[in-house]
Amino acid sequence: MAQTLKIGIVGATGYTGVELLRLLAKHPYAQVVSITSRSEAGVHIADYFPSLRGVYDLRFQTPEEAQLDQCDAVFFATPHGVAMRDAPDLLAKGVKVIDLSADFRLEDAAVWEKWYKLPFTAHEALSEAVYGLCELNREKIKQARLIANPGCYPTCVSLPLIPLLKTQALVDGMPIIADCKSGVSGAGRKASIGSLFCEAGDNFKAYGVAGHRHLPEIRQTLNKLQANTGEHLIFVPHLTPMIRGMFATTYVHLKDGVCPHELLSQAYSGSAFVDVMPKGSLPETRSVRGANLCRISVQKAPEYEDNVWILMSVQDNLVKGAAGQAIQNLNIMFDLPETSGLDNITLLP
Amino acid sequence: MAQTLKIGIVGATGYTGVELLRLLAKHPYAQVVSITSRSEAGVHIADYFPSLRGVYDLRFQTPEEAQLDQCDAVFFATPHGVAMRDAPDLLAKGVKVIDLSADFRLEDAAVWEKWYKLPFTAHEALSEAVYGLCELNREKIKQARLIANPGCYPTCVSLPLIPLLKTQALVDGMPIIADCKSGVSGAGRKASIGSLFCEAGDNFKAYGVAGHRHLPEIRQTLNKLQANTGEHLIFVPHLTPMIRGMFATTYVHLKDGVCPHELLSQAYSGSAFVDVMPKGSLPETRSVRGANLCRISVQKAPEYEDNVWILMSVQDNLVKGAAGQAIQNLNIMFDLPETSGLDNITLLP
Amino acid sequence: MAQTLKIGIVGATGYTGVELLRLLAKHPYAQVVSITSRSEAGVHIADYFPSLRGVYDLRFQTPEEAQLDQCDAVFFATPHGVAMRDAPDLLAKGVKVIDLSADFRLEDAAVWEKWYKLPFTAHEALSEAVYGLCELNREKIKQARLIANPGCYPTCVSLPLIPLLKTQALVDGMPIIADCKSGVSGAGRKASIGSLFCEAGDNFKAYGVAGHRHLPEIRQTLNKLQANTGEHLIFVPHLTPMIRGMFATTYVHLKDGVCPHELLSQAYSGSAFVDVMPKGSLPETRSVRGANLCRISVQKAPEYEDNVWILMSVQDNLVKGAAGQAIQNLNIMFDLPETSGLDNITLLP
Amino acid sequence: MAQTLKIGIVGATGYTGVELLRLLAKHPYAQVVSITSRSEAGVHIADYFPSLRGVYDLRFQTPEEAQLDQCDAVFFATPHGVAMRDAPDLLAKGVKVIDLSADFRLEDAAVWEKWYKLPFTAHEALSEAVYGLCELNREKIKQARLIANPGCYPTCVSLPLIPLLKTQALVDGMPIIADCKSGVSGAGRKASIGSLFCEAGDNFKAYGVAGHRHLPEIRQTLNKLQANTGEHLIFVPHLTPMIRGMFATTYVHLKDGVCPHELLSQAYSGSAFVDVMPKGSLPETRSVRGANLCRISVQKAPEYEDNVWILMSVQDNLVKGAAGQAIQNLNIMFDLPETSGLDNITLLP
Repeated sequence: MAQTLKIGIVGATGYTGVELLRLLAKHPYAQVVSITSRSEAGVHIADYFPSLRGVYDLRFQTPEEAQLDQCDAVFFATPHGVAMRDAPDLLAKGVKVIDLSADFRLEDAAVWEKWYKLPFTAHEALSEAVYGLCELNREKIKQARLIANPGCYPTCVSLPLIPLLKTQALVDGMPIIADCKSGVSGAGRKASIGSLFCEAGDNFKAYGVAGHRHLPEIRQTLNKLQANTGEHLIFVPHLTPMIRGMFATTYVHLKDGVCPHELLSQAYSGSAFVDVMPKGSLPETRSVRGANLCRISVQKAPEYEDNVWILMSVQDNLVKGAAGQAIQNLNIMFDLPETSGLDNITLLP
Repeated sequence: MAQTLKIGIVGATGYTGVELLRLLAKHPYAQVVSITSRSEAGVHIADYFPSLRGVYDLRFQTPEEAQLDQCDAVFFATPHGVAMRDAPDLLAKGVKVIDLSADFRLEDAAVWEKWYKLPFTAHEALSEAVYGLCELNREKIKQARLIANPGCYPTCVSLPLIPLLKTQALVDGMPIIADCKSGVSGAGRKASIGSLFCEAGDNFKAYGVAGHRHLPEIRQTLNKLQANTGEHLIFVPHLTPMIRGMFATTYVHLKDGVCPHELLSQAYSGSAFVDVMPKGSLPETRSVRGANLCRISVQKAPEYEDNVWILMSVQDNLVKGAAGQAIQNLNIMFDLPETSGLDNITLLP
Repeated sequence: MAQTLKIGIVGATGYTGVELLRLLAKHPYAQVVSITSRSEAGVHIADYFPSLRGVYDLRFQTPEEAQLDQCDAVFFATPHGVAMRDAPDLLAKGVKVIDLSADFRLEDAAVWEKWYKLPFTAHEALSEAVYGLCELNREKIKQARLIANPGCYPTCVSLPLIPLLKTQALVDGMPIIADCKSGVSGAGRKASIGSLFCEAGDNFKAYGVAGHRHLPEIRQTLNKLQANTGEHLIFVPHLTPMIRGMFATTYVHLKDGVCPHELLSQAYSGSAFVDVMPKGSLPETRSVRGANLCRISVQKAPEYEDNVWILMSVQDNLVKGAAGQAIQNLNIMFDLPETSGLDNITLLP
Repeated sequence: MAQTLKIGIVGATGYTGVELLRLLAKHPYAQVVSITSRSEAGVHIADYFPSLRGVYDLRFQTPEEAQLDQCDAVFFATPHGVAMRDAPDLLAKGVKVIDLSADFRLEDAAVWEKWYKLPFTAHEALSEAVYGLCELNREKIKQARLIANPGCYPTCVSLPLIPLLKTQALVDGMPIIADCKSGVSGAGRKASIGSLFCEAGDNFKAYGVAGHRHLPEIRQTLNKLQANTGEHLIFVPHLTPMIRGMFATTYVHLKDGVCPHELLSQAYSGSAFVDVMPKGSLPETRSVRGANLCRISVQKAPEYEDNVWILMSVQDNLVKGAAGQAIQNLNIMFDLPETSGLDNITLLP
């Protein structure tokens, strides 16, 4: 733990990339030594992200120049398909890999191919990949060489459900409805009409209603914890005009007598990054802006005879929903204090 | 129809007030002759709302000065309690009243008192009030002297449900989940910390989860159309950082074989202000910004075995959700073309 | 005036295009019969702009299909270079042309080529083009066949200056500083990183400080009215996180004794679309949102010995700054009431 | 330096208060031991600012309970008038005071009374107060017991001007025009109509044009550095729809041969919190969001014969413009490393 980990980031030009850079700059045991981008090779990071002027003295390199195999760990902040192609070589050279893309999230390659419309080519790596939802798989992550960092929606939806599913608290056969709202940064830093200020601003819409790629990912997690719950998940993502933040409102039927506040409080009492709020609290996304934190609140459906509950969870989609959780995985993999580099405080207002 | 209706507006200093003024300025058969506000009496409308400079030459008056009894119709754009107190006198003098507040929305005064924490004092007026959800009660509205203009959420949630409930299409005993998102103007134009730019901006939150006043209002509508459906409504409102707009995502279990797209399309084929979008469409709030319009789309829950559907409806909360529907009610009451003053087009972007 | 003008729009897929469509839909003497776009040919306007569902029954056509020569007038809402290429043919066939791009705004083709980095090829058309700043050139516009619709910044900056320059009110040799702020829609509806919600949102920046194409355009107007004033213009545009709206703060040294409020009030007393506000007023962009209107206010520099004034002008960059003024030009060219199709009211909030 | 300073904050319920709390939570040599608020006495900070749940275990106290005299330093984050009343007692008891309000910013009490409309009552304290513009007065701050923390606009406008004025680089008698734009948090966390999301959102406006309280404050600084420059300042503040951030565009006439980029670069080469950007750069407010940093860029007025320059400076109004600079003052006063607690990185996007 005394030494400093050498870190590489593949595809550091996007929002998860710049967020990794922001957080790792203050990490006491890790140092970014290499950032790659084919399109921006040669450009100084300070010219690309003026927010990092004075923080880093690094230039983007091509993957060939970057000597990523000299790193202790490499993050992939890339579109899907890249890590699948490049991670196996790095693993073979002893480099640990944390993939923020979707390449290794689905255990069944056939399901992956159906949703991602690409041939899956890294079966051997997939067999050792660990799904990096830290609060669920902490023990496995400690042993892992390859982490599939979870999607933003799956993190936000799964965290309040996990303690309920582990105790088989859901009524069998009833739908689980996850109505989710994301800030626009979830769409990434790419030029697209739909993400323009004048298209996404002052506007609220649903998208991916006919089937979003995070649906099979959440279902996979649910099914492992309580049988048949995955198939009963209905998941609708929406886009809300804010930069960062994600809100999940999840409706569940619980067995009589189950008290979700108690179950959640116990389950997460030792978790630094999950905050089960006091009864009667309502979370808001800005209460976690910039922080690696999921805040959760629960409320029984008012004036309703059955034991139906409303689970509300918020996170910063770029932190606990992406770069922050990736660093949390790094910390666990290398046996560092789990909060290393992740103790910054919410920016409010 | 040849003559021009004389219109008064009580409480024209808020967002529904200024929206009534905007729309009525172009109404071919109505003219605003009187606007009241105790706090702003004497102030010219152009000084209060610079957006109306050159449009109106009116000053706010006290209710006493205003001679509202000379009007053909009076709109109440006031906090609850005011119309309950003042409308009966106007009715007695032959003035028709359209109340944009909640005073006459609940048929059961005891329920009203429970939710609004005030004694209810206008029982006689209540007995003749018609709930002004135009597409549901058009025939009754024609005969009405007193309209309870519906709440914004109840309008947005009820419109997609009405044709389904009328045909008894919902599976008995299953929850109806209405997950709703509103722009900040829904909170009105009053100085409150929670509605500040720096509190509501770049933030998403739920509110009123333990019980919102629009819950009994929606339930009342549902119960009249299909027995026992009201009690199965779960309603969660959220605040989203936009000025205008409302989005309702409503989850329903339909009986086998029911096709909601067909039912909705038929039900609203003659309605100027409800647009059932083509299959596969997804509505967005900005597509109705400034227009008196509710756009609806439906989607079967993907990869789900039961006949569960996702109903999506959008409106401008200040127009179809408030001032626009109020004018629609005026048009129906006075046998004017229903679109009078309501044919302006969505402002986009 | 009894008949209806047939209108074509070239390049109707952008923000000025959709704004032309919104405004012309209510124009009493004009009807859009043709919209062109190579990339979207065949697509129904309602699928492209859901805000126009139910308003138009038109499909995009290629320019070849569109038979624009059957129109009375054609608007070019295109990038620069297109009108220069296509307008001469239409003019030759008797079609009047209103070009919202920059092609015909600069009288000196060499200056145009310097700023727009293209060879200028339509010298004959240029020689008859009239600069369509309506309040300045109303008489010439009446006779025009080809209108160069002004840029958004030049409209907003020139309107408060024109009456001062016409009366030679500026002190010779002193700088005129126009510090301007635009909403993001000014950048157009094209996929670019800089216009993303997450780049332009919650951010304020200057751009084009080393030289913006609207500088020579404004200078040309100034120089015609008072000698040597153009060269003394300093113009800095900024981007502000709002969708629509433009604010110009212009600092001028006036000769002793000059009272700009009086000069402006007199000059614009007969102009429907320029509002000189009462002394002490401060304009805000939302007071003109969606309306074809420039509101102006003036204030002497406080606690300052010289006769330096702060001119503040606001407009909706897409309306008075683009599509609205283009329709105002149409109305003047065809001897229609100048307010035809332009009497809609500001949307506020 | 080994020990930890005990810190009190008077009026910690506003935006500068919560920002002090955010930054001080990570300060290696300081600990907040007391926060006061009459209206919120007894409330836990985590219930008032959920963003601070898990960060502090403090409750608001009345000033009487708070025992502020046990602190090493007390910050006043209060409306004006409070520090003037309460600071002298604390000073007498040996507590150092950093006042974020305006009470001690103007050296001439008569001028203060004119602009703040209150009798000034703390003349003795005023005589020892140091104006805490750190980069200007670092040496005096080291000796100070009472700091007048500068206003947000004065900091942003003065920093690019100081090196020019110190070298007498401005042409005598020419105006200095500071056109400034602030995010809405500058108006504070108080319920006012003008700061509502629906009033300040999607809107740009000027305010205080007839005279803003920061005008005499900036003039005081200017006059000390180059004679007669203060009276030639014209200052216009604007409100822009973003939460945090401030942008100043300042226009100055420099003597022939003066190169402001060089002067600024030299002057700030040793300053951790002023970043003179490379030639050709343009600053944007988000590049300093959440960071104690002022970034500056300069550009000669294009196509202009005289030596007129455009100075652009950005800061986070709540950090370098308020709480961050206050902590910077604390660090200097107590001989701590100047960057203590201020090394957090810009949050982008």
